[in-house]
Amino acid sequence: MTNAPMGTIHLPAHADTIYQHIRDIPIVSPHGHCDPSWFAKNTAFRDPAELLIIPDHYVFRMLYSQGVPLESLGLGTPPEERDPRKIFKIFAEHWNRFLGTPSRQWLEHTFTNVFGLTEPLTPKTADHYYDLIDAKLKTPEFRPRALFESFGLEVLATTDGALDSLTHHAAIQNSDWQGRIIPTFRPDTVLNPASPDFIPHMHQLAEMTGEDTSSFKNYLSALRQCRAAFKAAGATATDHAITEIYTEQISDSDMQALLQKALNAPLDHAEATLFYGRMLIDMAQMSIDDGLVMQIHAGSYRSTNRTLFKRFGNDMGADIPIAVDWVRGLAPLLNKVGNNPDLTIILFTLDETTYARELAPMAGHWPCLRLGPPWWFHDSLNGIARYFDAVVETAGYWNLAGFNDDTRAFLSIPARHDLWRRGVATHLGTQISRGLFGQSDALEIARLLTRDLAIDAYRLRGV
Amino acid sequence: MTNAPMGTIHLPAHADTIYQHIRDIPIVSPHGHCDPSWFAKNTAFRDPAELLIIPDHYVFRMLYSQGVPLESLGLGTPPEERDPRKIFKIFAEHWNRFLGTPSRQWLEHTFTNVFGLTEPLTPKTADHYYDLIDAKLKTPEFRPRALFESFGLEVLATTDGALDSLTHHAAIQNSDWQGRIIPTFRPDTVLNPASPDFIPHMHQLAEMTGEDTSSFKNYLSALRQCRAAFKAAGATATDHAITEIYTEQISDSDMQALLQKALNAPLDHAEATLFYGRMLIDMAQMSIDDGLVMQIHAGSYRSTNRTLFKRFGNDMGADIPIAVDWVRGLAPLLNKVGNNPDLTIILFTLDETTYARELAPMAGHWPCLRLGPPWWFHDSLNGIARYFDAVVETAGYWNLAGFNDDTRAFLSIPARHDLWRRGVATHLGTQISRGLFGQSDALEIARLLTRDLAIDAYRLRGV
Amino acid sequence: MTNAPMGTIHLPAHADTIYQHIRDIPIVSPHGHCDPSWFAKNTAFRDPAELLIIPDHYVFRMLYSQGVPLESLGLGTPPEERDPRKIFKIFAEHWNRFLGTPSRQWLEHTFTNVFGLTEPLTPKTADHYYDLIDAKLKTPEFRPRALFESFGLEVLATTDGALDSLTHHAAIQNSDWQGRIIPTFRPDTVLNPASPDFIPHMHQLAEMTGEDTSSFKNYLSALRQCRAAFKAAGATATDHAITEIYTEQISDSDMQALLQKALNAPLDHAEATLFYGRMLIDMAQMSIDDGLVMQIHAGSYRSTNRTLFKRFGNDMGADIPIAVDWVRGLAPLLNKVGNNPDLTIILFTLDETTYARELAPMAGHWPCLRLGPPWWFHDSLNGIARYFDAVVETAGYWNLAGFNDDTRAFLSIPARHDLWRRGVATHLGTQISRGLFGQSDALEIARLLTRDLAIDAYRLRGV
Repeated sequence: MTNAPMGTIHLPAHADTIYQHIRDIPIVSPHGHCDPSWFAKNTAFRDPAELLIIPDHYVFRMLYSQGVPLESLGLGTPPEERDPRKIFKIFAEHWNRFLGTPSRQWLEHTFTNVFGLTEPLTPKTADHYYDLIDAKLKTPEFRPRALFESFGLEVLATTDGALDSLTHHAAIQNSDWQGRIIPTFRPDTVLNPASPDFIPHMHQLAEMTGEDTSSFKNYLSALRQCRAAFKAAGATATDHAITEIYTEQISDSDMQALLQKALNAPLDHAEATLFYGRMLIDMAQMSIDDGLVMQIHAGSYRSTNRTLFKRFGNDMGADIPIAVDWVRGLAPLLNKVGNNPDLTIILFTLDETTYARELAPMAGHWPCLRLGPPWWFHDSLNGIARYFDAVVETAGYWNLAGFNDDTRAFLSIPARHDLWRRGVATHLGTQISRGLFGQSDALEIARLLTRDLAIDAYRLRGV
Repeated sequence: MTNAPMGTIHLPAHADTIYQHIRDIPIVSPHGHCDPSWFAKNTAFRDPAELLIIPDHYVFRMLYSQGVPLESLGLGTPPEERDPRKIFKIFAEHWNRFLGTPSRQWLEHTFTNVFGLTEPLTPKTADHYYDLIDAKLKTPEFRPRALFESFGLEVLATTDGALDSLTHHAAIQNSDWQGRIIPTFRPDTVLNPASPDFIPHMHQLAEMTGEDTSSFKNYLSALRQCRAAFKAAGATATDHAITEIYTEQISDSDMQALLQKALNAPLDHAEATLFYGRMLIDMAQMSIDDGLVMQIHAGSYRSTNRTLFKRFGNDMGADIPIAVDWVRGLAPLLNKVGNNPDLTIILFTLDETTYARELAPMAGHWPCLRLGPPWWFHDSLNGIARYFDAVVETAGYWNLAGFNDDTRAFLSIPARHDLWRRGVATHLGTQISRGLFGQSDALEIARLLTRDLAIDAYRLRGV
Repeated sequence: MTNAPMGTIHLPAHADTIYQHIRDIPIVSPHGHCDPSWFAKNTAFRDPAELLIIPDHYVFRMLYSQGVPLESLGLGTPPEERDPRKIFKIFAEHWNRFLGTPSRQWLEHTFTNVFGLTEPLTPKTADHYYDLIDAKLKTPEFRPRALFESFGLEVLATTDGALDSLTHHAAIQNSDWQGRIIPTFRPDTVLNPASPDFIPHMHQLAEMTGEDTSSFKNYLSALRQCRAAFKAAGATATDHAITEIYTEQISDSDMQALLQKALNAPLDHAEATLFYGRMLIDMAQMSIDDGLVMQIHAGSYRSTNRTLFKRFGNDMGADIPIAVDWVRGLAPLLNKVGNNPDLTIILFTLDETTYARELAPMAGHWPCLRLGPPWWFHDSLNGIARYFDAVVETAGYWNLAGFNDDTRAFLSIPARHDLWRRGVATHLGTQISRGLFGQSDALEIARLLTRDLAIDAYRLRGV
């Protein structure tokens, strides 16, 4: 029994053939949070801490849970006032805290495969790690565009607010660089009156589009304009986040009344829920019209730590999943648009109990539905295994949407896709060994799960 | 690594002895939806499509989710206007969509073991499949009674509305054929005021029994009459479906008031829930009196696709499970009758989270409770594994109710029982290899899970 | 395939090294329900039935579910009127009912390792078992203190009502015996107005402390006095049980009004929930002040069988888990105190769906939170596996609280800790074989999970 090579998930013998078959397929990343300006400007990443630690809420939440103040990790501090080496040292001192977590898998894979580091990270080797990574970041091979290429990315989607000018995307497209980076339309702040930005963003939306957003009809036109701009910039999908999934087809006149009210003062919870619940249905109908695939991410209760929220803002590691009722929550939307063959909706859950109970039966019935891959906390070796265990028997493979990494940690993208591919190979190897199907079927499904289902679900082919 | 023989689930080496021990035990099928007229009339099945595809909501829901219109599968079309060969061809073209699903296991098992088909089903072999199956269906060996015998069925229970005249059952019993086919009393439409058939069925109930069903007392007498008729026809059990499990012991006078109201116009949701919640307790009390085992199936949200419901009716693949609260939902019923040693209630859930959390602790306490086998979507290789994983440690084996296939797909019965037996053998083999008990205990438990627990729970012995 | 030695869980080959490493580490039992008077008086246990069957609700609930009346097991009967040999015989006759349950594992382990019994328990060997155990109980080696020592207990915590005089604990500490037995502060009956004992216990609290408990301010002082007394007696922790987790920071004046009302007549459900919800926050704040670790056990719906409750009281095997919402339930408490580095709260759930969805993300964020081990029904081989599967990837290992046995069945303590250690070894062996980390990390984590995390979480070091 020896230590495994760092960052390598072992595979059952019968899964290796499958893994070899898919290991080197180019990466399709149809949903994530990388910053398009990296690729527009192609400037070097600042330092190891800013690249690997400070923006990664998987990493700093764990350190915080172990008593490390966020301030000591440079959060809330301007880059020029931070001591990145010291931050990296603190991280290294707590490296064992990540044992057993996907963060450790991803980072080990990154250290080994991207930076060529071979000795384990310890407080003693922290400076060596820091120096080597820092030096590499200063080389041309580690600029964003070069990494995009060496990672073998076929396409990378970013996520962009509805009001985003998409200038970085335009700059990329107007450059002579060939990397395919596309935006995703994320209009939560102009759809959900519970968003703190709703009122100012509605005014901005009016300005941008020249529409009177206090008229429900014109508000819809304004949204259609934005969607068209995104589509023109290469977008193939929208994205919607909702805490407790709820949809309802209330009348246009009720919407007009709620809209007027919402532009003056915050709606109460029930009113905001109604408004957003109707707007999700309108978004689905616009998707039928313009062909943008609709993504729904439900069930994250955001910013539960109000102290940290006030000090540092959103995405501070205190977004906690809650139970979700997909069946009754989506019923009005699906009954309005769900039988339309032109619609694709991809669903993401953090409540794994809904995999077998709700989502697989729903995806195994409605023509419009596809199940997104294991999301967030569940994008992990066990999470992937539980996902396949729970969804395949009822939804099959063709109702899935392949994989996406959903990350802002650019360097982790190859690691995440590799972990998924190992999870796919492990799953399919087990299916073969149980006698469910043979190798040729397994290899076809492996390719689907690695690339083709994502291309198909996100309508990325030949665009 | 070669393709496995079609439809064969492999077993861990140490499980094979157990499987061999139970493989050929006659099939006990105490809950299902076969049509008793098949066995009363014993006419040949019409064609492969009508036998295998059109009535199987597992099959057509998957095809529908993949963009196949239900019309193209002959649903909603009179048999004489369908093109069954074309329907079978469409099915064959989408056969890979079923990879990894129990439907594929069952159908492969049926093709191989019932029809002797050995080459894989593909669009190219579809005609060969169709012709061979069609030809066999025309032979005496493939008439319903002959299949019943060649499947090794010891007993088969059907499910029959409370108002059913049971003439087919009478015909079977009055024939010289010895197959044991018994009815099951399913009175939902005369218990649940939310049923669209409630008012007409209540009138029919009055007519059938000569009781004034607008009097609560006489209504109960009418139900007792029906139960007695079912019992006389061989029934040993009742069956009750409820969306969100709820029981409450409201007073007779409240029931009288609700009953009067319900016979005139639909009750609101809360009133209907109260009424049905009390009637379930009365059903349990009648079970104590007449000895019929009570089955409760909870948690299926029916016909969520209203468009398909309006076009094609119930059971169109859009019945989706929801979360269920067994603990508080059943408390009033159990506190009224649950300590009675003469009562048996078998519970079925689609919410697997309740296996370990609620149902196993309840079955491991209340003398009246037995857990039914994995239901519907969970009657699958992984579903069976999750069931044993979650229930046995708390409920043990003796509080389970063995297996039932719950199917209207007659030809899949041997396949389903075989899959269960392989699941049992796999589970018990693992228990042995973990050191939980030895082979002799495992073989005893295997026999219990295959036959004896079902015989005992459903009171089928020596009737 | 031979029968395994009784009570021995087999391990995958690669896990054995880990198990050997932790097998003989002294037992830390920081939460449980042993009776301190056993160790204060050190008198012999009365007989095998009173020791092993009558107080064990895991055992008698299973027998009850199988039709054995509790009366026949001696429940509700004074010890001198019982026939313990007959009770043991009934138990032996139903011994197969426990196949596959942890109760059987624990008892087999106890029979083999504590009493040296090697042949299987059957109705025929029941008398031999009874005689041998009975004879051993009369020897000095089987007195409570001697067993404590031979079990290798480093520390054992009991659970004691807030009003407990702690005389047995004082007697132990004043004796010349060195065994470390400490109390745990369990104040539910003086915090939760829904407790049937609330009013009398509040009066008793007033008497004991000399505080006017009808004044909210003085009531808090009275509680502080009790906590101080427990701390002086060696307590390092409190324990709180709550059915549906709910906390809210209502005002002092609202609390004063509710308090006054509660002392006169039972509060309604909503009022009692509010009162208890505020008191849990106060308990957390007192924990910050006095350093007592806070334990919260949520989600057991108690005494669901009212007939048995009326006849026999609490803890009759009819406590059934329900779904719990930790996220919204704890939010007010955590937002008040959760960022305080001096606070430790250990959470226990019976709703396993919250492991990955809620508890692991919460423990992986909040510095104060630790996850307790699998509780009650889930303290089992599969329960332990599911726990590690669901929590480690998000919470890591350092946010866990190690193991505790939570038992009143003193003789089962070594068996329960051994099962945990085998579960730990199995889990870590699998982690190694998957390549997640190597043996040296695994051995460190094994030691943490066996002893050090419990010592640390419960602040037991060097006290």
